[in-house]
Amino acid sequence: MAMKSAAASAVRAFTSSAPSSVLARGLHASSDTKKIVAVTYTANEYASMNPNFVGCVENALGMREWLESNGHQYIVTSDKEGPDCELEKHIPDLHVLITTPFHPAYVTAERIKKAKNLKLLLTAGVGSDHIDLKAAADAGLTVAEVTGSNVVSVAEDELMRILILVRNFLPGHHQVINGDWNVAAVSHRAYDLEGKTVGTVGAGRIGRLLLQRLKPFNCNLLYHDRIKMDPELENQTGAKFEEDLDEMLSKCDIIVINTPLTEKTKGMFDKERIAKLKKGVLIVNNARGAIMDTQAVADACSSGHIAGYSGDVWYPQPAPKDHPWRYMPNQAMTPHVSGTTIDAQLRYAAGVKDMLDRYFKGEDFPQQNYIVKDGELASQYR
Amino acid sequence: MAMKSAAASAVRAFTSSAPSSVLARGLHASSDTKKIVAVTYTANEYASMNPNFVGCVENALGMREWLESNGHQYIVTSDKEGPDCELEKHIPDLHVLITTPFHPAYVTAERIKKAKNLKLLLTAGVGSDHIDLKAAADAGLTVAEVTGSNVVSVAEDELMRILILVRNFLPGHHQVINGDWNVAAVSHRAYDLEGKTVGTVGAGRIGRLLLQRLKPFNCNLLYHDRIKMDPELENQTGAKFEEDLDEMLSKCDIIVINTPLTEKTKGMFDKERIAKLKKGVLIVNNARGAIMDTQAVADACSSGHIAGYSGDVWYPQPAPKDHPWRYMPNQAMTPHVSGTTIDAQLRYAAGVKDMLDRYFKGEDFPQQNYIVKDGELASQYR
Repeated sequence: MAMKSAAASAVRAFTSSAPSSVLARGLHASSDTKKIVAVTYTANEYASMNPNFVGCVENALGMREWLESNGHQYIVTSDKEGPDCELEKHIPDLHVLITTPFHPAYVTAERIKKAKNLKLLLTAGVGSDHIDLKAAADAGLTVAEVTGSNVVSVAEDELMRILILVRNFLPGHHQVINGDWNVAAVSHRAYDLEGKTVGTVGAGRIGRLLLQRLKPFNCNLLYHDRIKMDPELENQTGAKFEEDLDEMLSKCDIIVINTPLTEKTKGMFDKERIAKLKKGVLIVNNARGAIMDTQAVADACSSGHIAGYSGDVWYPQPAPKDHPWRYMPNQAMTPHVSGTTIDAQLRYAAGVKDMLDRYFKGEDFPQQNYIVKDGELASQYR
Repeated sequence: MAMKSAAASAVRAFTSSAPSSVLARGLHASSDTKKIVAVTYTANEYASMNPNFVGCVENALGMREWLESNGHQYIVTSDKEGPDCELEKHIPDLHVLITTPFHPAYVTAERIKKAKNLKLLLTAGVGSDHIDLKAAADAGLTVAEVTGSNVVSVAEDELMRILILVRNFLPGHHQVINGDWNVAAVSHRAYDLEGKTVGTVGAGRIGRLLLQRLKPFNCNLLYHDRIKMDPELENQTGAKFEEDLDEMLSKCDIIVINTPLTEKTKGMFDKERIAKLKKGVLIVNNARGAIMDTQAVADACSSGHIAGYSGDVWYPQPAPKDHPWRYMPNQAMTPHVSGTTIDAQLRYAAGVKDMLDRYFKGEDFPQQNYIVKDGELASQYR
């Protein structure tokens, strides 16, 4: 791809720490070596196709040489489920567990209890809901993620999905590959985005980036969040704050989910709430699958109440072959990929390396990265 | 769809003429009735699914009642090819021929010669290259289109296609519908748009709208055109003017085609020019298929020199079942749909009606609509 060098330079701009390989040398003298386990997705034949493809098992977040030359043990696997999996074998004696939302190792209370040496849970990416955060806090662990590392990636992807749904892209593409040509079958339900009402549930880092990118499309932009944005950003995007979630939702032609998965947001879009949405609403959800009631979404797509649903998040992941979202009409789903572009991988790999380096040296992480610190959850998870 | 009323209000904003049904009454008294033929796409079962779906044969651009109640004969058909087609039957005595780029009736010199009563060719949409404009000019005809009617629709669609290619959307979606899950197969070649170099060949109405929408994505934006944009717009989008086409193309990660099809641009992207592009370039072309050398594009997609190609324009249209773009790798093609959203249909139907109304009353059209006037071609086609 022509973009390789652009991606590499983006990561240099993102991570401001000094080269960790230099800083870490001091540690090499120490005998305090750690067992570090990372769980991510396997790439097989794809692993060697791109030198910047650091996010897969084979390329080990680009840290193998650095960790091993400093005496640490480093295991990377995708085998994360069931009592006999590779991850389970290392639970009793690992010190650091690195996970990723794209191929989530579910870090349950039971696993935490078994992990007697565990001190640090790092998320390569953003979103640590696959970890039982309360159990982690109770056990005195630190949980941190690479805040900001892929927010641009996800926001761009959301705008793509909005357009794919509004323009009714997929039926046209499928005509092409099936040898057909039927303009009407696409155009009878294809629209401009201009002039439509788009609401985001949550206007944190990703939601704000989405609103900024939506600005030139001349939509009516709405957002619901716990707190109002600062007036400058509100002014810049033209988005209107909606204090009442359901009041906002009832106005939306297009709804985008940009809220973390918490006890409060789990199953937030159930049958009753979906029934109150505009008939023909489009929904984009790159946040977390479990924010939706799975069957309620599938039923509303089948009835046409939801005219299109697109996202890359499912529960569980990988999605089983019989997950109803694979088969419902008017879906534009993908596996969990929006936050794991090559650019994002380079940034979150650099962020994980930076935090490990600080951990070895007994230094604090960047404050915004903490999800659980000193037994306390970050505000968005409370 | 929830967007029905939004679409209808958009068209009210677009067409500023007084309601034609009122203005046209005077004409009803006159005996000067016309035979008007429109060629567009058939909708069959889709025709009745959306009250705003005016662009299909069945819904006749929403003008049947108006034209017939004023004594005109109005024929709408999709049957446009070969000596025995419906269109051919009416060529000898029609006065006005309405065509559309989405299902183009190829108005050849031969057809123009046969059309003894023909005075006016109206394009429902934008782009009249399916008409032999020189022959039309020589025959003293007027050719006009609904300038501006779907430029927003096309620009939005281009941005969608850029993202679909950059993010490698389709392989992930196909995994979902095939029951698979393989993040690496997508993410090893998925990128952020941020930081990439995007160049548009042509920065007319559509190109400028695209640049405005690309602005918040923090790309390096380039454009090539015959003329430099006014400094205010250039400043607003941050796009840099490139006088030399090939010099610009060699810098681009992503190329978007936004130039009309003319003798100069026909086959512009041939084997030699494509060979000079960056390896791994992405190309979006919603302009016209014939700007590309069909086989050269297919070969470069197969070799990987072009890493992705997306567009909705082909030559000829409908695309035959054996068109190579249907089968080349990394394509994100659709039939010709980007400019025929429901919103666009309402606008170009209103624009055609407005021009017919002015024609009946002997009034001029909006100046920017003329493609051939008094035997002279509009500047972009010269």
